[in-house]
Amino acid sequence: MVTVELICVGNELLIGKTLNTNAHWLAKRITSLGLKLRRITTIADDLDEISSAVKEALARKPRFIITTGGLGPTFDDKTLEGIAKALNVKLKVNDEALKMVEEKYEEYVKEGRIEKAELTPHRIKMATLPKGAKPLPNPVGTAPGILLEANNTVIIALPGVPSEMKAIFEESVLPILRREAGNMIFYEAGLEVLGIVESEIAPIIDQVMHDNPYVYIKSHPKGGEKTSRIELHFSTTSEDAETAKDRVGRAIIQISEMIKAKKGKIRPLKVEG
Amino acid sequence: MVTVELICVGNELLIGKTLNTNAHWLAKRITSLGLKLRRITTIADDLDEISSAVKEALARKPRFIITTGGLGPTFDDKTLEGIAKALNVKLKVNDEALKMVEEKYEEYVKEGRIEKAELTPHRIKMATLPKGAKPLPNPVGTAPGILLEANNTVIIALPGVPSEMKAIFEESVLPILRREAGNMIFYEAGLEVLGIVESEIAPIIDQVMHDNPYVYIKSHPKGGEKTSRIELHFSTTSEDAETAKDRVGRAIIQISEMIKAKKGKIRPLKVEG
Repeated sequence: MVTVELICVGNELLIGKTLNTNAHWLAKRITSLGLKLRRITTIADDLDEISSAVKEALARKPRFIITTGGLGPTFDDKTLEGIAKALNVKLKVNDEALKMVEEKYEEYVKEGRIEKAELTPHRIKMATLPKGAKPLPNPVGTAPGILLEANNTVIIALPGVPSEMKAIFEESVLPILRREAGNMIFYEAGLEVLGIVESEIAPIIDQVMHDNPYVYIKSHPKGGEKTSRIELHFSTTSEDAETAKDRVGRAIIQISEMIKAKKGKIRPLKVEG
Repeated sequence: MVTVELICVGNELLIGKTLNTNAHWLAKRITSLGLKLRRITTIADDLDEISSAVKEALARKPRFIITTGGLGPTFDDKTLEGIAKALNVKLKVNDEALKMVEEKYEEYVKEGRIEKAELTPHRIKMATLPKGAKPLPNPVGTAPGILLEANNTVIIALPGVPSEMKAIFEESVLPILRREAGNMIFYEAGLEVLGIVESEIAPIIDQVMHDNPYVYIKSHPKGGEKTSRIELHFSTTSEDAETAKDRVGRAIIQISEMIKAKKGKIRPLKVEG
């Protein structure tokens, strides 16, 4: 499977100011495309931390590294500098990116939001990319994303503002990931089990996973102190949707019979989409 | 400052099934105690991934490594095995932990939730700890947390179920972190800026941070396409609450004057608590 690592940059994530919904959204999106997200690393707006995290991720040789955050005009937007440092390449004003930034500020002037579209150092900063990087247009905000190849890894940097991150992802990143994923399809289903505790269901899951080697089953205890409610999550990845569905279906039938034999109750569960 | 790393274990976090509210909660809690959360690493329920992530974190020498997830009875609860592998120590049934687990199941029998409290292999697994680990009682669920010292780092493993994670944290981890933090206090405040764009405020922030070296200021653009709304977040850490408040207050006064000079509008902002 095609592997992906995510690096989320932002002090706000480490002080608990902001819940990392970007990682959640990207994880769901990457998985549904049939790629495998292997790791999410969250670090501060710190040049050395960013450069180290990128270097460490590169050493694990994922096909893609996607970063979020740190592309804006302020002093603490250090992701591009961090990527350049990790790759040991220079930062350089990129003409295509500069044009994207300039056009945005010209729009803002027309809309009366600002007075001048002049390219101040802070605006030029957003178009100053690691050498070899290609800017990805930002349909919503000002800072472009970037795409950069390093050996066999494609590094993609996206902004931290969720609406901008999603817009660049859908427009520029999705087609690339889809092409790499080929026909891999991720299929999932859920089951709710009542009336037996997790340690009773553990040996049943062992057995069913052993008998269904391509299906991954995970149990999530959800009950409070006094009740036993366990959500079972089934997933598989296959090049063929029918095969994927069949595999999960077979595992669900087997586990349902075993749970009923233990006097547990079963309910289908909609997997949150 | 006392540093902390967080390692979140769970496939559900990497496939986008579950939003990592545990990391958010812990980040806020750790920061408010005056400690510094340096990194959050999210990985799959995979022995090698867990062991690598723990080893890498140990090499960065934080004072604390806190893990969440992977302590339960099922085959894919591999955190304790991963920690043992990282430290190159053996797993061993811990008598104190076994007693905790056994008493839980005896309670469940009394409550009529299960028939027998017998110690099956899956239940004994939850009391099988890396050598040298101390179990931390779980007031809500069955799997104990653990605490283990490795050189100058304290490793703390907590369950992934939020109610259990929080209960063990409050009861057993909080007193330890508070003792280490000494009198360090984290203080934060917010400001909402209307009518100027982020690239205009960037040089202002640079100036104010330069003049107020202990205050960290971060801007979060929140407006949509047509409006400019920027949240400014001010924070500092000090041994003294008055000092912390003074520092942030001084930075807010300076920045407010500079924003008004640019014809921007300012509103106080409640920092989400």
